[in-house]
Amino acid sequence: MVCWPLKKDNVVLILHALSGDAHAAGYHTTKDTKPGWWDTMIGPGKAFDTNKYFIICSNFLGGCKGSTGPSSIDPATGKPFGMNFPMITIKDMVTAQKKLLEHLEIDSILCLAGGSMGGMQALQWMIDYPGMVKSAIPMATTARLSPQAIAFNEVGRKAIIGDKNWNNGDYYTSTPPNLGLSVARMIGHITYLSDEGMHLKFGRRLQNKEEYGYELSSEFAVESYLHYQGDKFTERFDANTYIYLSRAMDYFDLAGVYGSLTEAFRNVQSKALVISFTSDWLFPPYQSKEIVKAMMNNDKDVSYIEIFSSYGHDAFLLETEHLTLIVESFLSTVTKEFCDASDKK
Amino acid sequence: MVCWPLKKDNVVLILHALSGDAHAAGYHTTKDTKPGWWDTMIGPGKAFDTNKYFIICSNFLGGCKGSTGPSSIDPATGKPFGMNFPMITIKDMVTAQKKLLEHLEIDSILCLAGGSMGGMQALQWMIDYPGMVKSAIPMATTARLSPQAIAFNEVGRKAIIGDKNWNNGDYYTSTPPNLGLSVARMIGHITYLSDEGMHLKFGRRLQNKEEYGYELSSEFAVESYLHYQGDKFTERFDANTYIYLSRAMDYFDLAGVYGSLTEAFRNVQSKALVISFTSDWLFPPYQSKEIVKAMMNNDKDVSYIEIFSSYGHDAFLLETEHLTLIVESFLSTVTKEFCDASDKK
Repeated sequence: MVCWPLKKDNVVLILHALSGDAHAAGYHTTKDTKPGWWDTMIGPGKAFDTNKYFIICSNFLGGCKGSTGPSSIDPATGKPFGMNFPMITIKDMVTAQKKLLEHLEIDSILCLAGGSMGGMQALQWMIDYPGMVKSAIPMATTARLSPQAIAFNEVGRKAIIGDKNWNNGDYYTSTPPNLGLSVARMIGHITYLSDEGMHLKFGRRLQNKEEYGYELSSEFAVESYLHYQGDKFTERFDANTYIYLSRAMDYFDLAGVYGSLTEAFRNVQSKALVISFTSDWLFPPYQSKEIVKAMMNNDKDVSYIEIFSSYGHDAFLLETEHLTLIVESFLSTVTKEFCDASDKK
Repeated sequence: MVCWPLKKDNVVLILHALSGDAHAAGYHTTKDTKPGWWDTMIGPGKAFDTNKYFIICSNFLGGCKGSTGPSSIDPATGKPFGMNFPMITIKDMVTAQKKLLEHLEIDSILCLAGGSMGGMQALQWMIDYPGMVKSAIPMATTARLSPQAIAFNEVGRKAIIGDKNWNNGDYYTSTPPNLGLSVARMIGHITYLSDEGMHLKFGRRLQNKEEYGYELSSEFAVESYLHYQGDKFTERFDANTYIYLSRAMDYFDLAGVYGSLTEAFRNVQSKALVISFTSDWLFPPYQSKEIVKAMMNNDKDVSYIEIFSSYGHDAFLLETEHLTLIVESFLSTVTKEFCDASDKK
């Protein structure tokens, strides 16, 4: 999505998460039943105010929603790449996004923003193109996945690969491995919520029943929710893509690649606002603090806020009121520092 | 397992967890490569000292390691029950254990002890047979599963049921649904460890490699561990049994069944020692505290200790030194109160 008018000093690049896409806000077609994934945050008068900022969001490299990924046609064979698609990294995604901006003749980003895997891209952007990025807002993210997060990803992949329909990734003309993909998505959803949030949202409530049936089929509300989320996901997402993207996350490791996290951020020039959420146990606040500490070790201009929330990892999509206040204020400051300064030139 | 000599005032009933069995300590056959699951705690001179106590542990109802469960032969058909096995509850397991003790002509239990699902049985025992149970040590347990724990169980069941070899539970003469069962077990194992424990045990270390290969196949040590645990489990456990037992846990809900947790413990007569572990996020300490609070509301003789540990839920199997000190001391007190008192009669 690209929102006009273009003023080349007010570009905000929105970076989406694992299951997100370029459709970040508004309705694109009359068939859309829901607006974009960050519609609460992007639009006229909203945190990322389209009256003020030139907002860009593209499907990242490896995705299945407009970009090139495992489900895309391999020009060499005329068939989908499947498992012949090359391994990709968060850095590759950023390189592809840079090429998009070059194509749009944009050489300066006022602000990068994204949660989860979107936050990883924001961190990589700051490191790879320090002169180009004025500011960044990485949310609910990490500079490297914990072994626990890798473990959850691996179980999801195992469920997909074990699905009788996976067929080594060659299922584009047959039944796709929906069962494996839905199991992977269900595991993901548990990690996106928090224990407390699930107590509040579901508790031990039954779906359309009052008393325990003591039966093997699912009857708890939390089970219905997960099945629904798992099934719905298979209608809009590609299983091989899930394998590649989750693996790209596993390998994201700024400290490992640059020697240390402090070393990773040494040449960063952006102002940064790091946001974490108290109940996020997938990428817990301590991981955000590691990022902030590493930036501070380099005397970078970094702010950090830990938002109290029971929404878990999903909070970056749901804590709209808090985020709006914080993001609006940060963007105003950044605009004052960079855009107004450039106006005076 | 039954350890002699029998003195009818010194019976300790050990209650095993989901994947445990009657083989709690020592080596039963020359083929055993490992001792029983709680060998560190049970034996001569150990916490549950077989020189002092008459230790009993039986495979619970619904199990696949000696008891009657889905993999047992249905006398009506001559074939395994499979999904025709009736739904069972924790209370049913306790009822069956009571019948075993009647058969052994034991009408008094000095102490019940068990972790996780074993702890649930201990709680149910205290409630169902208050006059019979002198004391109990429920560890790393809960009076009801959280929606998060139910969610993890349900994803595991979905993986089993979705396995192409599951065949509605009728796989005893064909290939069993090992892939689904191993996925369920892998999910389980993640919940048995803690984030911190996984950092300490695996970190982002690679298996037999120094540098990231950026490949889709597993190469992190944590992945190898989970695959190994998942595969190994399929050699010793039955998939339908996993479905039934995990469901029995989901339905365990003392507050729901008795109106409130305080009401549930109203008639309990046992002395109790409740033990939780700081990093257990499957059945976190706050759930143990709810049990303790409910007992205290009834002025029961309850002690509570939260052991600092990075082992997560598995700590009840691993924190041997701490547990030995605590259990030995508790059992000495209980022995003094009950056995010595009965000697003086």
